[in-house]
Amino acid sequence: MASVTNIDLTLPTASWTSRAMKLSKRIEGLTGGGSDGWDIWRKARDLKARGTDVIELTIGEHDRRTEPEILDAMHASAKGGHTGYAALPGTDALRDAVAARVARRTGVATTRGNILITPGGQSALFAAHTAACDPGDTALYIDPYYATYPGTIRGTGAVARAVAARAERGFQPDAADIAAKAKGARSLLINSPNNPTGVVYSRDTLQDIARVARDHDLWLISDEVYGTQVRQGEHLSPRQLPDMAERTLVIGSMSKSHAMTGSRLGWIVGPEDAIAHLANLSTHTTYGVPGFIQDAALFALNRGQGLEDRVAEPFRRRHAAAQAVLARRGMPVVPSAGAMYLMLDIRATGLSGEAFAHRLLDEYRIAVMPGESFGTAAAGHLRVALTIADDRLMAALETLADLYDTLTEAAA
Amino acid sequence: MASVTNIDLTLPTASWTSRAMKLSKRIEGLTGGGSDGWDIWRKARDLKARGTDVIELTIGEHDRRTEPEILDAMHASAKGGHTGYAALPGTDALRDAVAARVARRTGVATTRGNILITPGGQSALFAAHTAACDPGDTALYIDPYYATYPGTIRGTGAVARAVAARAERGFQPDAADIAAKAKGARSLLINSPNNPTGVVYSRDTLQDIARVARDHDLWLISDEVYGTQVRQGEHLSPRQLPDMAERTLVIGSMSKSHAMTGSRLGWIVGPEDAIAHLANLSTHTTYGVPGFIQDAALFALNRGQGLEDRVAEPFRRRHAAAQAVLARRGMPVVPSAGAMYLMLDIRATGLSGEAFAHRLLDEYRIAVMPGESFGTAAAGHLRVALTIADDRLMAALETLADLYDTLTEAAA
Repeated sequence: MASVTNIDLTLPTASWTSRAMKLSKRIEGLTGGGSDGWDIWRKARDLKARGTDVIELTIGEHDRRTEPEILDAMHASAKGGHTGYAALPGTDALRDAVAARVARRTGVATTRGNILITPGGQSALFAAHTAACDPGDTALYIDPYYATYPGTIRGTGAVARAVAARAERGFQPDAADIAAKAKGARSLLINSPNNPTGVVYSRDTLQDIARVARDHDLWLISDEVYGTQVRQGEHLSPRQLPDMAERTLVIGSMSKSHAMTGSRLGWIVGPEDAIAHLANLSTHTTYGVPGFIQDAALFALNRGQGLEDRVAEPFRRRHAAAQAVLARRGMPVVPSAGAMYLMLDIRATGLSGEAFAHRLLDEYRIAVMPGESFGTAAAGHLRVALTIADDRLMAALETLADLYDTLTEAAA
Repeated sequence: MASVTNIDLTLPTASWTSRAMKLSKRIEGLTGGGSDGWDIWRKARDLKARGTDVIELTIGEHDRRTEPEILDAMHASAKGGHTGYAALPGTDALRDAVAARVARRTGVATTRGNILITPGGQSALFAAHTAACDPGDTALYIDPYYATYPGTIRGTGAVARAVAARAERGFQPDAADIAAKAKGARSLLINSPNNPTGVVYSRDTLQDIARVARDHDLWLISDEVYGTQVRQGEHLSPRQLPDMAERTLVIGSMSKSHAMTGSRLGWIVGPEDAIAHLANLSTHTTYGVPGFIQDAALFALNRGQGLEDRVAEPFRRRHAAAQAVLARRGMPVVPSAGAMYLMLDIRATGLSGEAFAHRLLDEYRIAVMPGESFGTAAAGHLRVALTIADDRLMAALETLADLYDTLTEAAA
């Protein structure tokens, strides 16, 4: 029961669906068609199931579990009777705690009325797009992107339109590229610190993005679930920028900051009227979040900065060590300062990220995510999750660099 | 922390929204406008907050808490490490257990591939409509209805169209009424045992509904969360009827059957290809259900029929006692055989359900839901939740009958 599992899904083939009841076009077209990007992950899982030792660097899941004290707090709440329907925008106490934390971290006045508690960050992403977009409206997102982004937008009935952040700019989006695609759009989804690149958007980048949002009257949906995992500089929320609090919906979560991925506890920070409507929406989409989980999250937030630092520390340490290994080996790495990933540029091998990742898995039993799993902008790259013990991670990176050397020599 | 709370929401006024960023029409129009139907409930809550003793017969929440053994099982799972991302269609073990239970109760072959675990029944309702309807498609639902139904449909971007079930037919829907509104519709949502009426649809009613669904090529979305609370006859799922398994999506939940309302654990039973697409959708809307809650649900299901009977027993007992009181008092009651509610017909008073409910609360400190909170078909009725201790419930019904007598005499 304790295994870490994830997406386990094989969509039916066309021949299967043809004789069945017609489903909505929206749900059938959710992931576009072709691979869903999880082929390597599934292949690795199948190898492991057959007893093969695979070094797993695919999923963004901590190699530590949720703190026992947090689980004890959850149990105390449940045994204390918080097992009925919980307050629907979230409990007052948790909304107050999230608001205080946001205000402390950003300096932006934030109160309970700005906070909706959701069952996880993914649910918050879906709700934010439902609030911003009517069916048929266009929603922008930045490529490379976390795997669910376009399907989340399509699920709401909106039209997903990608804006590439180019490798040549260190994957910092260019405002001109966004503006060129903004006509008729209602929202723009960004993610800094970024999954999959690890890039933290600079103040300049965020100011440019904010200007485009204002100029084109866009909602800015800012996924900041990696906000506590910044290794250099500071995490800047676009909600802090002038006139942006009124048009920004920030997505937050306990998953990455407190190693509570499985608890499914997230939130949206936004203007009061938007939050009131989003609370109404939550009545119709999820009917809220278990009270005992909200109480566990409150306990975890009250543990303060120390816990968040302890959860972030391994990624800071491994990132530095990995950078040193890869610099010594002369492997190109995307400059990054956040999240729990590292992105490698393997274009010099002449292989796609997918082809490289398959070889690495087939020949060396090391699983990494190809950049192509996250859109087209990160083609020829690999995402490495820094989620295993340091020594195994460094050994895996040395092996990866060996394969890179072999392939680049062959390509030269 | 242990209080039973619920919808706590005041939508902003028009003047508030006018100066804010434009939200989607969908979210602003979610609940139609006018009262959301919860005025009496809010008034009762406010009275209680000011120290007034109110007899609360509004919300469908058990007066018992989730069993301690279930909560201990949840804690053991969490402490055992099931705190990471859980398998997304649901754990194999829980899907197997739900499938086996469905097969046992209905006789319809059901396996893991027919089951998607969702964070609660409301989430399952939303997902089912997203699977059945594209934006702009029409989705039918029966009036009187559980309060979230039309907003759930509108939230997906579909168009909600009500079909009245008439008081004169004991709130059993008439197939002809459904057929008259079925043109261009993609789905029909039904709920038996019914909230708010307590009515259990007869085999004839369900066969008629099934025929309309087949004739008009509709998805039948069957909300069966009260399926364990049937006092007379049997619960029949339309999925059991000929050729209906391929076009029926059944909504289930642990909330009412196992007194686990706050755990937010539900499911959809449907054809395999629909479930595969719904699992894909869940990746983009909720990212699954906490593993420790899934393990708690598995433990609860494995407790077997005995627990379900114990949870249902108080409503059976109170329903019989209430019927006896109301029959003696000559109060007209909607013939019902299920759920945790009783519906009274107060039309002879000349008052609306709302006006009666306000007088009952203002003068006698008894809170019941007006039929108008559940659509137009139950106007002039009251929904009484059988969710307080028997003696207090009977005393409240006597008081209610006194007011009914006074008002009918005045009206005569």
